[in-house]
Amino acid sequence: MRMYDIIEKKRDGAALADEEIDFFVSGYVAGDIPDYQASALFMAIFFQGMDARETAHLTMAMARSGDMLDLSSISGIKVDKHSTGGVGDKTTLVVVPIVASLGVPVAKITGRGLGHTGGTVDKMESIPGIDVAPSRERFLEIARTAGGVVVGQSGNLDPADKKFYALRDVTATVNSMPLIASSVMSKKIAAGADRILLEVTCGNGAFMKSVDDAIELSRQMVEIGENVGRTTVALITDMGVPLGACVGNALEVREACDVLQGRGPADVTEVCLELAANMAELGGKGTLDECRVLAAASISDGSAFAKFREIVAALGGEAAALDDPALLPQAACSRVVRAPRGGFVWEMDTERVGTASVILGAGRAKKEDGIDYAAGIVLARKTGDAVAEGDVIATLYAAREDLLDDGERVLLDAYDIRDEMPGERRHFYARVSRDGIERY
Amino acid sequence: MRMYDIIEKKRDGAALADEEIDFFVSGYVAGDIPDYQASALFMAIFFQGMDARETAHLTMAMARSGDMLDLSSISGIKVDKHSTGGVGDKTTLVVVPIVASLGVPVAKITGRGLGHTGGTVDKMESIPGIDVAPSRERFLEIARTAGGVVVGQSGNLDPADKKFYALRDVTATVNSMPLIASSVMSKKIAAGADRILLEVTCGNGAFMKSVDDAIELSRQMVEIGENVGRTTVALITDMGVPLGACVGNALEVREACDVLQGRGPADVTEVCLELAANMAELGGKGTLDECRVLAAASISDGSAFAKFREIVAALGGEAAALDDPALLPQAACSRVVRAPRGGFVWEMDTERVGTASVILGAGRAKKEDGIDYAAGIVLARKTGDAVAEGDVIATLYAAREDLLDDGERVLLDAYDIRDEMPGERRHFYARVSRDGIERY
Repeated sequence: MRMYDIIEKKRDGAALADEEIDFFVSGYVAGDIPDYQASALFMAIFFQGMDARETAHLTMAMARSGDMLDLSSISGIKVDKHSTGGVGDKTTLVVVPIVASLGVPVAKITGRGLGHTGGTVDKMESIPGIDVAPSRERFLEIARTAGGVVVGQSGNLDPADKKFYALRDVTATVNSMPLIASSVMSKKIAAGADRILLEVTCGNGAFMKSVDDAIELSRQMVEIGENVGRTTVALITDMGVPLGACVGNALEVREACDVLQGRGPADVTEVCLELAANMAELGGKGTLDECRVLAAASISDGSAFAKFREIVAALGGEAAALDDPALLPQAACSRVVRAPRGGFVWEMDTERVGTASVILGAGRAKKEDGIDYAAGIVLARKTGDAVAEGDVIATLYAAREDLLDDGERVLLDAYDIRDEMPGERRHFYARVSRDGIERY
Repeated sequence: MRMYDIIEKKRDGAALADEEIDFFVSGYVAGDIPDYQASALFMAIFFQGMDARETAHLTMAMARSGDMLDLSSISGIKVDKHSTGGVGDKTTLVVVPIVASLGVPVAKITGRGLGHTGGTVDKMESIPGIDVAPSRERFLEIARTAGGVVVGQSGNLDPADKKFYALRDVTATVNSMPLIASSVMSKKIAAGADRILLEVTCGNGAFMKSVDDAIELSRQMVEIGENVGRTTVALITDMGVPLGACVGNALEVREACDVLQGRGPADVTEVCLELAANMAELGGKGTLDECRVLAAASISDGSAFAKFREIVAALGGEAAALDDPALLPQAACSRVVRAPRGGFVWEMDTERVGTASVILGAGRAKKEDGIDYAAGIVLARKTGDAVAEGDVIATLYAAREDLLDDGERVLLDAYDIRDEMPGERRHFYARVSRDGIERY
């Protein structure tokens, strides 16, 4: 078998055979196939796509390229969750404790932020004392005792995805449905859960800009899951506005605690409850409506927040910092940003809000960059809100005044204030499962 | 400027700006842009194409990536010729002497064979004593004194094309019109001639399989030439059958001498005369009809063959070997191949004939391979010929019997003998110039 023939075959629009996909994945991970042939194949896939069988086989070849996690020592139906990323998306911090408190075990491995979107591991690391890289044994032990755990990637999980992504990221081949779908699903399958809930974000702060694209990506990922025996459900959520008020690591932990204590912003609370209800339903805790009631109750009776404290403590983190935000990292400088004119916030460039938070120090432009856990943005006005000229629309946090200057400039650019009031936004667009597409 | 953005722009179907093309060509040749980004761009160009302005600019950026030959010390209108390659295509060996004998200076730099197609330099090297890599000064001197010269590539001519082609060859991105057109034309432009005749081969032994593709490629190359002030004409010739009877280096030199002495096969003679007439017309020697008469006369009066002897001698070659084929390299073994059935040769898989000659030792499967100048095939029957079972259809030449076994098997596969007689083939399909497309 020759890599040349595989590239040519895909270039000419044919479906690759299982053995050809295996040859490519194992050869590329082993270093036998050079980057320049892999990038040519990725570009050919960008144009020609892959059918369901190819995508499922690629996914499994990637998942099997490294360790496959064995969660069988944890009893119950293990449910995992993945978000395709967004700005202010702290849902994992809220949803895992809710679901774990309902008795559905969640042993979740999560990523770091890159570009304008944040990463759950970075957010957790803003909690003093926490160790997000425990041993595999300790990870499983916490999942068994606390019923839920969230840690960073370690070991040799899905090395194919790491190598693929690094190459796609510099060759303009990230934005291909079968490549995105196999990337997400191979990591989830290698991570060992029985069932998977996908939060597919969509809008100007997400990788999928249109609802139709998000539905198609969801459909492909649900199909992969079903093909390999892992029931998968996708919720398509709005990322046309930052989620909640806070963008930045410690700020988002604080907001997650607010939500878990029943006093968070309405949008992020609603999204978290719906995600949690879907995970509980996947975990066999009742119908979706029953699970919605259970999820809401876990917040009002305090059990979800107690579970978050338990998980953080099990990872060595100071649970007290969840009760008292003053114990979380604090920025040296802050600045309020005021509305340059009155009217309504007509639209926000969500990606630009994320970029502003990166400039302030909350994210990484490059993989090697460090992070300022205290940096970020608290939004006082979002899309649909009325503002008067001079009203505070946001507060910025950073380590230095010059970062505030740059961040303010970019954030102001993200606001489009007009005289008219925009239509109301929804938080969910659709739910995709093996039963089909259900629009909200 | 970032290479990523250039790949993405082409991927999304936009035309690249001149500065973006310059950035890519100079950055890739300098080694600042990695192979994996270049191959992704080539694959994006494969799918999205390039417009006339982009292709012309790419061509000039490639031509300028190394030395630009200065032929101004040679008086007259310098005319160059290029063939897109074929099996048994020895036209350069015939056409250059004809045209030079008519007073049109030709200072030609030519390539080696790769894959199933032969290369003119390899053919010339089969002449004992010849040096196809003289100094630049000596090259120009021969062009001035003999009026014609053909040598191999040397120095730093179009390094972009060398680097591009090596990468395209292993990433299934050779077969893209703007990339083929810019590759051919950048070499010709760097080689300094005033006017260019292109022999665009078409059929199952050529890179262009259909007449329409060959016309489109011709159109693009003629347009590039006109865009940069080098009048260019393309003749689309048939490569659905090997050209002439001989395939293999010394064998083709022998056949070229036959043609120059007026006793060559009809097909290759006709093609050579038409190519020569077009070059003479480009060189200002009269109308095309007048030039056809001149070209034929140069053979019948012996001046063309004398010119070939003069050029070979100037390069240090034994001109006596042109008179006496016994002085050319001789194969140790030979074998006749007989028709397995009677009928008519309905079709020949020309590429397979080329592959058989490579197997016999006449060509290279890889760049590093050596060549057996004596090896090759003399075809006794070609498409359209009647055969009886057991008739000799070809004679094979090689260094060892086992090579003859392999070559015979492949060659027999190339013949499709049927009861019906196929329609007559033409040698020319069209002529493309700035005046448009003229079908033959």
